[in-house]
Amino acid sequence: MAKDNFVENIADIETDFPQWYTDVCKKTQLVDYGPVKGTMVIRPYGYAIWENIQKELDARFKATGHKNAYFPLLIPMSFMTKEAEHVEGFAPEVAVVTHAGGEELAEPLVVRPTSETIIGNMYSKWIQSYRDLPVLMNQWANVMRWEKTTRPFLRTSEFLWQEGHTAHATEEEAVEETMKMLGVYREFAENVLAIPVICGRKTEKEKFAGAVATYGMEAMMKDGKSLQSGTSHYLGQNFAKAFDIKFLDKDGVQKYAYTSSWGVSTRLIGALIMAHGDKRGLVLPPKVAPEQVVIVPIAAKKGGVIEACEEIKAQLENAGVRVVFDNTDNSPGWKFNEWEMKGVPLRIEVGPRDLEAGKVILFRRDTCEKCECLKDSVGATVISLLETVQKDMLESARVRRDERIVKAADMQGILAGVESGNFVKAGWCGCRECEDKIKEKTAASARVMLDELEDELCAVCGKKAVHTVYFARAY
Amino acid sequence: MAKDNFVENIADIETDFPQWYTDVCKKTQLVDYGPVKGTMVIRPYGYAIWENIQKELDARFKATGHKNAYFPLLIPMSFMTKEAEHVEGFAPEVAVVTHAGGEELAEPLVVRPTSETIIGNMYSKWIQSYRDLPVLMNQWANVMRWEKTTRPFLRTSEFLWQEGHTAHATEEEAVEETMKMLGVYREFAENVLAIPVICGRKTEKEKFAGAVATYGMEAMMKDGKSLQSGTSHYLGQNFAKAFDIKFLDKDGVQKYAYTSSWGVSTRLIGALIMAHGDKRGLVLPPKVAPEQVVIVPIAAKKGGVIEACEEIKAQLENAGVRVVFDNTDNSPGWKFNEWEMKGVPLRIEVGPRDLEAGKVILFRRDTCEKCECLKDSVGATVISLLETVQKDMLESARVRRDERIVKAADMQGILAGVESGNFVKAGWCGCRECEDKIKEKTAASARVMLDELEDELCAVCGKKAVHTVYFARAY
Repeated sequence: MAKDNFVENIADIETDFPQWYTDVCKKTQLVDYGPVKGTMVIRPYGYAIWENIQKELDARFKATGHKNAYFPLLIPMSFMTKEAEHVEGFAPEVAVVTHAGGEELAEPLVVRPTSETIIGNMYSKWIQSYRDLPVLMNQWANVMRWEKTTRPFLRTSEFLWQEGHTAHATEEEAVEETMKMLGVYREFAENVLAIPVICGRKTEKEKFAGAVATYGMEAMMKDGKSLQSGTSHYLGQNFAKAFDIKFLDKDGVQKYAYTSSWGVSTRLIGALIMAHGDKRGLVLPPKVAPEQVVIVPIAAKKGGVIEACEEIKAQLENAGVRVVFDNTDNSPGWKFNEWEMKGVPLRIEVGPRDLEAGKVILFRRDTCEKCECLKDSVGATVISLLETVQKDMLESARVRRDERIVKAADMQGILAGVESGNFVKAGWCGCRECEDKIKEKTAASARVMLDELEDELCAVCGKKAVHTVYFARAY
Repeated sequence: MAKDNFVENIADIETDFPQWYTDVCKKTQLVDYGPVKGTMVIRPYGYAIWENIQKELDARFKATGHKNAYFPLLIPMSFMTKEAEHVEGFAPEVAVVTHAGGEELAEPLVVRPTSETIIGNMYSKWIQSYRDLPVLMNQWANVMRWEKTTRPFLRTSEFLWQEGHTAHATEEEAVEETMKMLGVYREFAENVLAIPVICGRKTEKEKFAGAVATYGMEAMMKDGKSLQSGTSHYLGQNFAKAFDIKFLDKDGVQKYAYTSSWGVSTRLIGALIMAHGDKRGLVLPPKVAPEQVVIVPIAAKKGGVIEACEEIKAQLENAGVRVVFDNTDNSPGWKFNEWEMKGVPLRIEVGPRDLEAGKVILFRRDTCEKCECLKDSVGATVISLLETVQKDMLESARVRRDERIVKAADMQGILAGVESGNFVKAGWCGCRECEDKIKEKTAASARVMLDELEDELCAVCGKKAVHTVYFARAY
């Protein structure tokens, strides 16, 4: 398939999705490789997306009663071993500080892969009475997990994230919190990232190391693979027992608290790229786009064009729109390609002929459609159109995804389904053996389990199904 | 000296300033000690101050054309050694990752103590032409310096900060940037933190390891000691040469770039505590206070009191004021002490008798003065009073400081000055020997040098002075 010349920098999305992803990451200057293998540098264009994500999420966390705090990066190795499943899950991936201040340390320190242990240690000091509960905290931080195979945003040895950690007097409250934050993530993913997600419980095999139950949200990428985009863990009393988080309850009895944790990361930038991108590059939803509008002058030397651009820019800025006016020497065609590749939701083309007629041209990045707009009403039109784009992007992602959810009743069906780039719904008996078999034969893993039982039988062993599961290949 | 009973939790500020500081840090729940020696946990009340600092600074950085990015935490050990002074300054303090992913690393990795080296490495890739300049970036990050003696906020092995890193085509531009950001810090310190600062150049002994020149801002704490509160470094071509940051200039010649870096940290929270605090505890300037107003009901069970509190709260919240309504079971007196200790700038006391007269009582934390206010105009009064408090706090800090700046013409004068808790201005010949002698005999260090020469002779050797220097004991 011949490549359009405007995307000569980017591999073809249809035939080489992985290379397309890497090209988009690099060519749009979202990210670069760091000097240490597996690390990334988040460049300003990528970091601006993260700042918008942070702002939106942080407001939601605060609105649900959470406060931000900051816990130390380095965790004593001995903490890791206090929760048996936790250490088994994370020990193989940790980076370890053994020397500091010119001396060998008495105890090696782990660079946090996640902070349940060190936060549990602090909570045990702060929580004495039922009056101290609930404790609802979040931190924005860097974490480190030493991975063998890495890709920018999706899997890197260091990444940025937020991790919420809460402690409650009762199981009910902790479970409610776990589900509430899953709901916050879903609402955010859909309304801010314009990414429809499938939420549900993870299988025992896929759950967080140390959790009683993990709930995740899964998003479909354009290659049909799934990206785990956020998780919320009900930790029961596992960490409370390991770290002695006890409180004197109203009834005068000492009890262990119930805890939860939940997180999303810079991985969400990868989700944005792969859920919305197309052959021309990035397509960013307005709410997180670093620039929501680019103004491109046509025949810039003609009288009045630059002035009109400046005027429109000022008008949009006053209305709170993030706007860039590309007044460089490059040709309009070059600018079109560049800003389309960078995924800016709207372009305003300002040319002398249109201006004479009191008009400008608007170009929507998501649909690649153009329309005319009266210059005098460009502010209101842009604001309304940005809202439309935001909604339409979610809707078209939902249509794309729903077309690619299929059902299967046996292994053949699962294999055929995932081979064609689908999410496959199938019945599952609940045993690890059948889950492993599917992974082995189809490279698909159980993404989430649904409450509703749609199939009577397990697609692998034919025994009675206890869950309906979404199977997919995943990042 | 007998302690007032309302401060029974806090050591006396006059007689035991260090313990007062530690007590205030802990009792107001700003911070706690982490499990690893020298680390701190920034608790929600402390972190909320940091968030306000971040918001104010970040807006200033963006307004001056800087963009945020994120660079990796781990730096190859070999990078550190590329700039000779830099490695000498920082190598003794670094924490080192030697193992990761279950294996020993081929090259040890340093947990960043500052990021000039890794950012220099990336800039060398990104900068090719004069068209790529200037590069103006900032990152908000954690850094680690292994210190022997630590104190919360002031000196901890890990702390949070921002570090700006810029690259320019000419020396003039890089120097201009260095001074511009020092100016941004000064304006921020004075108008947001209400802390007057003395800005100037650091001596060779005190400058940043690898800089051509370091400029700092120094703030006077209530014990007369100085706190270095921010620094801006002109790095010349030192890091450009070490990391090969070269560009093709307009004249067709390959040249090394000129770079700058500048930073402030969570140390500023320590500055707030020690510049404004008093015997009752914290005194926070309104612009960074997590809560700007606390509403305390008096005789809460009397009809109408709670309703009036709720009404005032809603009114203030709508006006954008950060307000807390303390409707707990504790006595008004207990609440007064608690919120005074936490430094909330204004308290509104709502009692039935005042309410009948259509009034409430306002209490200013900075002056500890009360005044009456008509309930119906409480919104406007509070907003205006918060502005007054903000200005008055700066002014009174300035008066306090200026009273404690003295001149000295000889070593005796310097010693007497610093012993009495002053900043001492003295002439200096510019030689390291005299600087070291002052340090040795008075425990005061050269804080900053001024451009104006106020004394003709060096206070130590009596030779011709080339600088006027502020000497002080420092944190």
